[in-house]
Amino acid sequence: MKARLILIGGGGHCKVCIDVIEQTGQFDIIGILDLAELVGTSVLNYQIIGTDQDIAKYVEQGYSFLITVGQIKSVALKEKLFHILNENKAVIATVVAPSAHVSVHSNVGAGTIVMHHVTVNAGAIIGKNCILNNCCDIEHDTIVGDHTHISTGAILNGNCRIGNGVFVGSNATVANQIVIGDKAVIGAGSVVIKNVTAKDIQAGNPAKSINK
Amino acid sequence: MKARLILIGGGGHCKVCIDVIEQTGQFDIIGILDLAELVGTSVLNYQIIGTDQDIAKYVEQGYSFLITVGQIKSVALKEKLFHILNENKAVIATVVAPSAHVSVHSNVGAGTIVMHHVTVNAGAIIGKNCILNNCCDIEHDTIVGDHTHISTGAILNGNCRIGNGVFVGSNATVANQIVIGDKAVIGAGSVVIKNVTAKDIQAGNPAKSINK
Amino acid sequence: MKARLILIGGGGHCKVCIDVIEQTGQFDIIGILDLAELVGTSVLNYQIIGTDQDIAKYVEQGYSFLITVGQIKSVALKEKLFHILNENKAVIATVVAPSAHVSVHSNVGAGTIVMHHVTVNAGAIIGKNCILNNCCDIEHDTIVGDHTHISTGAILNGNCRIGNGVFVGSNATVANQIVIGDKAVIGAGSVVIKNVTAKDIQAGNPAKSINK
Repeated sequence: MKARLILIGGGGHCKVCIDVIEQTGQFDIIGILDLAELVGTSVLNYQIIGTDQDIAKYVEQGYSFLITVGQIKSVALKEKLFHILNENKAVIATVVAPSAHVSVHSNVGAGTIVMHHVTVNAGAIIGKNCILNNCCDIEHDTIVGDHTHISTGAILNGNCRIGNGVFVGSNATVANQIVIGDKAVIGAGSVVIKNVTAKDIQAGNPAKSINK
Repeated sequence: MKARLILIGGGGHCKVCIDVIEQTGQFDIIGILDLAELVGTSVLNYQIIGTDQDIAKYVEQGYSFLITVGQIKSVALKEKLFHILNENKAVIATVVAPSAHVSVHSNVGAGTIVMHHVTVNAGAIIGKNCILNNCCDIEHDTIVGDHTHISTGAILNGNCRIGNGVFVGSNATVANQIVIGDKAVIGAGSVVIKNVTAKDIQAGNPAKSINK
Repeated sequence: MKARLILIGGGGHCKVCIDVIEQTGQFDIIGILDLAELVGTSVLNYQIIGTDQDIAKYVEQGYSFLITVGQIKSVALKEKLFHILNENKAVIATVVAPSAHVSVHSNVGAGTIVMHHVTVNAGAIIGKNCILNNCCDIEHDTIVGDHTHISTGAILNGNCRIGNGVFVGSNATVANQIVIGDKAVIGAGSVVIKNVTAKDIQAGNPAKSINK
């Protein structure tokens, strides 16, 4: 039987998640939770059926959950929703696109979605509630923390250590053995060849801090 | 029955198109149209059987068509050939590589080829006579005009509006919600984080105008 | 019957190779050769069973070989091991990941590994003992020499000529018709729009020499 899945967050990122979830053939999407004023509207034919106030009710009914809010400027909402799910002892899904290659020698945490054409190589460990966006590549032995978003086409080379709540922008390149601290933000197309401290914001080739 | 297909343009880009068309298993390539002095020569074992003067004749014979001239410096030839096909009421093929992921929630126009390992995400709308070159990624809700070439590995992130006759260079990154005007040219490896006006030529990280 | 394969080199790159080899289903990995002090240890459950002193013995026993040492700073070790294999008339394997697209109109040399999601287009010719790392893209009619490493996500566009022992860094972009000389090194994320002489080291967008 397919797992019955509730999505939390009905924006643009939710569309992308639905596209991956449908491809897997492993889930029935029951509906989406979002703001009260959006209840009754829909995203790609799936209805917004409630708000995050309804999580406890749906946990009791035996549904699984995936957080489908995006994450570019701040990870706070994604993190908060994940804690609410855990407090409610919710079953949290892990979703892997059929076109992705996830090594049997790697680990992917609960609540993480691995999108189209992604590579997760041998020895990689991916945390919980992460987004591995379309076409990104996580190389061998690299460790990614929780609530982290590796955006479209970004490459984390081997033996990196990426913190919690990090955002690595689209098509960014992170060299081997780089350490990136919690909640750091790496701009699109950046080339990271030196370690990045927590909460730092970097961009460019080579990437430099643009924090003021 | 397979569609019988005539290719228009027999250069390097034609080779790449043939490689994709063969993978689909949906077409019999009847031959290629190019310059008169090339008639009788061949590309990957397919003969150059005529010139664009022969389009009307082949339309009458019930063949389908795909324009396989490349497009880096100018879109004029691709555009002109497309108009000739339309004037002749030709059947124009759409080609999608089996290794591409094209969302069922997206739309791809006539005469467009979607190459190996490409992603076209939910809500994306791709115009007519476009090239989505190998490994490029068109994200959710992005709209691409007609006669536009998204080169190898380029990434258009979500909610972009890309004009007609645009060239986005190899491995370029276009941030979310960017608008690029008609016939603009984005250099290879550029990182576009601001809107680009029509016919502008940009390069670099971040991308800047190099028009003189 | 599956080919029985001996890997030479047991570091991080070996893990990545094993991940690809297992996916192909075409080889039984018999063991790994590395330094004497590592014999008896293992990589992803495959034992280090000897050193390169044992190559002749394993050739006699009918095994095939793949060199799985990495290559970033120097190609010397990979090259030396390949010469030892040839002197011993060893059977050298070619490995292609099932998720890669290798055109039937291309050629890939002995000892080369083509990793996950790679594209090798029509007319491309890849030398011996090369690494085409995950997600890289080799375009039409491009020729790559021996002992060359095209790193993760790098793109070589059409009609390029890449020498022997070259390293093209992760996510680098090489424009059409570029010539790169033997043993040149291209940094991660570089955008190469001019020819590169032998042994030159380049980085940046656009790529410039950083040789001192």
